[in-house]
Formats: sequence, structure tokens, C-alpha cells
Amino acid sequence: MQPMVVVKRGEEVESRHIGHVAVVDSDGRLLYEWGDPERPTFPRSAMKPFQAIPVVTSGAADRFHMDDADLALCCASHNGEERHRARAQSILERTGQTAAVLACGTHLPRDPESQQEVIRKGIEFTPYFSNCSGKHAGMVATAVHLGEDPEGYERPEHPVQQRILETVCDMTATPREQVSWGVDGCNVPAHRIPLRNLALGFAQMADPVSIGDKPVRRAVERITSAMIAVPEMVAGKNRFCTDLMRAFNGRLAGKVGAEAVYGISDRQRGIGIAVKVEDGTQRALYATVMEVLRQLGLDREEPEAFRSLASYHQPVVKSMSGQAVGKILPVLELKRSD
Amino acid sequence: MQPMVVVKRGEEVESRHIGHVAVVDSDGRLLYEWGDPERPTFPRSAMKPFQAIPVVTSGAADRFHMDDADLALCCASHNGEERHRARAQSILERTGQTAAVLACGTHLPRDPESQQEVIRKGIEFTPYFSNCSGKHAGMVATAVHLGEDPEGYERPEHPVQQRILETVCDMTATPREQVSWGVDGCNVPAHRIPLRNLALGFAQMADPVSIGDKPVRRAVERITSAMIAVPEMVAGKNRFCTDLMRAFNGRLAGKVGAEAVYGISDRQRGIGIAVKVEDGTQRALYATVMEVLRQLGLDREEPEAFRSLASYHQPVVKSMSGQAVGKILPVLELKRSD
Repeated sequence: MQPMVVVKRGEEVESRHIGHVAVVDSDGRLLYEWGDPERPTFPRSAMKPFQAIPVVTSGAADRFHMDDADLALCCASHNGEERHRARAQSILERTGQTAAVLACGTHLPRDPESQQEVIRKGIEFTPYFSNCSGKHAGMVATAVHLGEDPEGYERPEHPVQQRILETVCDMTATPREQVSWGVDGCNVPAHRIPLRNLALGFAQMADPVSIGDKPVRRAVERITSAMIAVPEMVAGKNRFCTDLMRAFNGRLAGKVGAEAVYGISDRQRGIGIAVKVEDGTQRALYATVMEVLRQLGLDREEPEAFRSLASYHQPVVKSMSGQAVGKILPVLELKRSD
Repeated sequence: MQPMVVVKRGEEVESRHIGHVAVVDSDGRLLYEWGDPERPTFPRSAMKPFQAIPVVTSGAADRFHMDDADLALCCASHNGEERHRARAQSILERTGQTAAVLACGTHLPRDPESQQEVIRKGIEFTPYFSNCSGKHAGMVATAVHLGEDPEGYERPEHPVQQRILETVCDMTATPREQVSWGVDGCNVPAHRIPLRNLALGFAQMADPVSIGDKPVRRAVERITSAMIAVPEMVAGKNRFCTDLMRAFNGRLAGKVGAEAVYGISDRQRGIGIAVKVEDGTQRALYATVMEVLRQLGLDREEPEAFRSLASYHQPVVKSMSGQAVGKILPVLELKRSD
């Protein structure tokens, strides 16, 4: 298999990443591909925009006065900055629940500054620190609103997860019997679908008029708009998702997933893009995403936005004292699908 | 290319790593292989045992009273624990130099406990924190002992690096014109050689009687013994190099390199093993090394040692709350070389 991304040290190749890309329109037509666009893939957190749909369609979002920042946080793999922790707590408190109900576990904030602050001040860890705390708060909100016991909302048989499974199948046009699953890092089911189906989900976000079910269509529009309106709630400081949405200013919505998955909605063209790095390494992911955008012409259509993200496109490898010693280079060539 | 390691979530494959293995005897015969045993590879820190040879052959090790722990630290990618920092400083001070001469840069200690302590107490960063500080102290020691200006010892044209290049060529039987180079993370030249030549270097460490040059032979014996005698100086707490050498108690010497490279000397059989994960991801490296040892029969020959390293062989993937949700499984099958 040909490399998708090469890592160079000086003039020589040091490491190589292989991977897969699918570009799809909202009718599910495969437009462009690299590698295996059918690759069965755990999108992990790249599913979050779809997992948030029942929060809106159930009425929980209205009941608990969720604004754009709240909904964006429901789709987030956030940095664990103070603003993210506080908002996750606020959503949960509006539902009358406490952190004790959250099943996401916890970890050090991803943002280095917040991480060091937490260690320095000995701030106590809560589940709000989990990069998934917004998603979990949304799941709890849905259960509470519908009068379900939120306890155990993370289990596959709980109505919260059943609704999400149905939504994922609908948004990605994947028959239920083709969806397998494992447990995600935050203890909820992680579904596995072909990569092109993930791209279709993002195409439906990009072009929601194609969604027949009106409440779902409105929910998708509201969620995508929320992500784009408050991108700092979807990730945070120095994070690709936030920087991408900010740079393309309403045109693109993007979401990362663990093990190097990415989904993008291009609202101008009404297409969805999905990327999976075979080995799960994030350093190859954003470089690939940027190269896909370039080959789709976004460097010419939005030169300023594209240029502002150059450090994600061909990241410089630096030595410990900051000297440039290498480069991460995407080398894929999108092929038009038949 | 077939995967070398698969990462499973539940019963399904989530990610795959490809890679390369060479098993070589001290005559340079390729015994076993996987992937491409000739792959041009930057061994990075897996070269450190060879880079330390001139410290001994020059007489610097004797002049500055370097004991086993000092020499082990010269071969280390250490954790930045207090014991590592203190010893790097001690070596350097014995040469009459200060940290100002060190070109390695610095970074947070790799050991999480030391890392948190440094942040909590606001301890000032010095180059001693660099995982390469022992190697750099050894380089400086050689220059000082030989009356060379240590300033600029990191540059390829400095005699320190010229001696190392010659040593690398000799130990790995690589003609000088076949060695290309880039700059390492710690600013010294990083040489690039075929993977099987790296394995040969480790085979010569395993079976040094084959080394014609007596002072080099003695230096190799002394360095290998030092690594094995004080393995906690080669890496540190909860590190594979340290745990491997401790478990196999004199039989194996092992050294990791950045971008997922590993070299092992099996002193009982007199063979060398080299591994490179194509994508540079460390999680696939130790699993591969353990599986190679298993296929070479070390699980039967040293069952207790092998069993004590089980968590490196098939690491469990855990959710944020510690639930086992997947597994990292080496799936390579060594092939006998013709």
C-alpha cells in the first residue's frame, strides 16, 4: 500500500503512514477516494455531532435552555480548559444531576496550560475534565427530559444509547446489522461503520435538506450551526477543529475522533469528507485533511483561510531546542471514484 | 503489506501497524525477518550503545572515573528522574564543564511522577532533564579528555561526531558512503542505516569476540555489562528497556529509539535483533519485540522472565475509567531467511 503521509528527517524518510479517505455527496455518491473508502472504521468522537442529535430532537435542548455553546460542547472533544469544565457542569446542573452520574471517567486536561495549572494548584479531578464531559451531559439531559432513569445511560441497552444507534444508522445510511461496536474511551458504545458511511453522515450535515425527517433535519442544522458559531467549545486553544472552523468561517464543520479519524462537512458544496489513518496516529491526520482540502480546491477558493492553517498541512518536526529538523508531508493523491 | 500489530476494540480491529524485523548473527547472517529487513532506518537512540564506545576507547571513561551507572546513563533515554539528572550533572562536573555546554535542549521528564513533581514545585528546567543528557555528558567527556574544544561537539564536523560515525560504520558494517543522516531530537547527527545493519551492531554487542579491534571489543563488553548491571539508568521506572534487562538478568541488553526502533543483544545465542515500526508508533514496538522473543523461543527458555513482561506483549487498551476495552496484538510471523 502506498503511503498517505511521510515523515522526513532532513532529506530522508524516517516513517510512513498509510490511510484512507472518502469524499461523498449527500446522496451517498462516492466522489473521491484514497486507500480503501469502505474501510470498517470506529469514528469514535467523530460521531459526536450525530450523538448530539437526540439531545435536540428529544426536546432536552429546549427544556434545559441549551444555547449554541452548550450544543457545541455536546459535540466536543474539549481541551479541559476552565470554560469547558464550567459549561459541562452547568448543563448537568440544569438537569438536576451531579457529576456522580457521569460515566465518562476523567483524565488530565489536553490543553498543556490547563494541565500544568491543575497539577500546580492541586485542583481536584472531576469527570468534567474528561474531553467527553459535554457529550455525557447531553446524554444525561436527554434521559432526564424523557423521564428515564439516567443511571447506566452509558450501557448499550439503555434508551439513550438505543436512540443514538438509530440516529447513527439513519445519518450514515448504515443498516443496523452492519454496525458492530466496542466500548469507547469514555465507556459508551463506539460504533463501527464503513468510512464512506461516515463521510455520508457529514455530507448530510453539510446539506441537510436531503434529510427527510424534519425534526432531525432541524436538529442537524442547529448542531452544525452551533459548532461553527462557537468552535472553541468543540475543542479549544491550539486545536485543529477549532482553528479549521474559525478559519473557514461558516463553510466547514469538522470533528476529530480518537485513533486518527476526521469528518468534515463542506456546506458550500454539500459534501462530506472522512479520513482514517490506518495506524491511528494523529500527526498524520490533520496533514491529510489539509491536503484533501487542497486537492478539492479550497486553497484557491479560500486562500487566506487555507494559508492560516499551513502549520497543520506540513508540520515541521523540531528538535528539543526548537531547530527544524524534518517535516510531515502528506503525499496522497485523491482519485476520482467511478 | 501485512500488519505486524493490530489494535482491537472489543472483537474488531480498530487500527493496524506495519513494520520490519531483522535477526542477525555476529557474522552478519540474516537468520529471521519480517517486512523489509533492509529498510533504511534512523535508529535514533537505539544507536546510543555504539555512540558510547568512544567514551571508553578514548580513555575518557577511566580518566573521569565512570562506573557502570555512569556508562549506562551514557546509553540512556532516561526518564528524567532525580537520580538520572543528578548523575548526568555529576559526569559533566567531573569533566570541569557546566550545563551551559550541553546542546541537547531540554523537556519535561518522561516519568509522570517526576513530571508532576517538577510542575508542582516549579523546579527550573536544565539540560539534565533531557533524556539524552547522559549521552551528551559522555560526548563532552571525550572531547575534554582528548584536549578538544567541547564547544560545538554536536556538529557533524566536530571530532566527537566523526569518531561516532566511524564507530557506527564499524559496529554495523555499513560503508560510510551508505550512511545518510539528519539531525536528532537532541541536535546531534542521527545516522540512517539498513535495519539489518542495526541488528548486526547488536549482534556484535551480544558476541563481542567477533570484534577484531581489541580496545573496541573491551569497550563493547564494558558498555553492555554496564547496561545490564544498572538497567534503571538506561531508562527508569516503568520502562521497557529497564524491565526487559532486569527480567532477563544478564542475557539480554535492549535499547529503544525514537520513531519506534528497538535493538536487542541476546548474549546467550550471540544474535542481534532490530525492529522498526513503519509509522513510528511506540505502542506497536514493545509488543513486536516480545513476540519476536517468543517466536525465537525465549518464552520456553526463560518462562518466568517472559511472563513477567506480559503487559508489554499484549497490552490491554483501557477506557478512561480503567475498563479493559481492547487489546494490542502482535500478529507478525518471523520467516527464516534464505
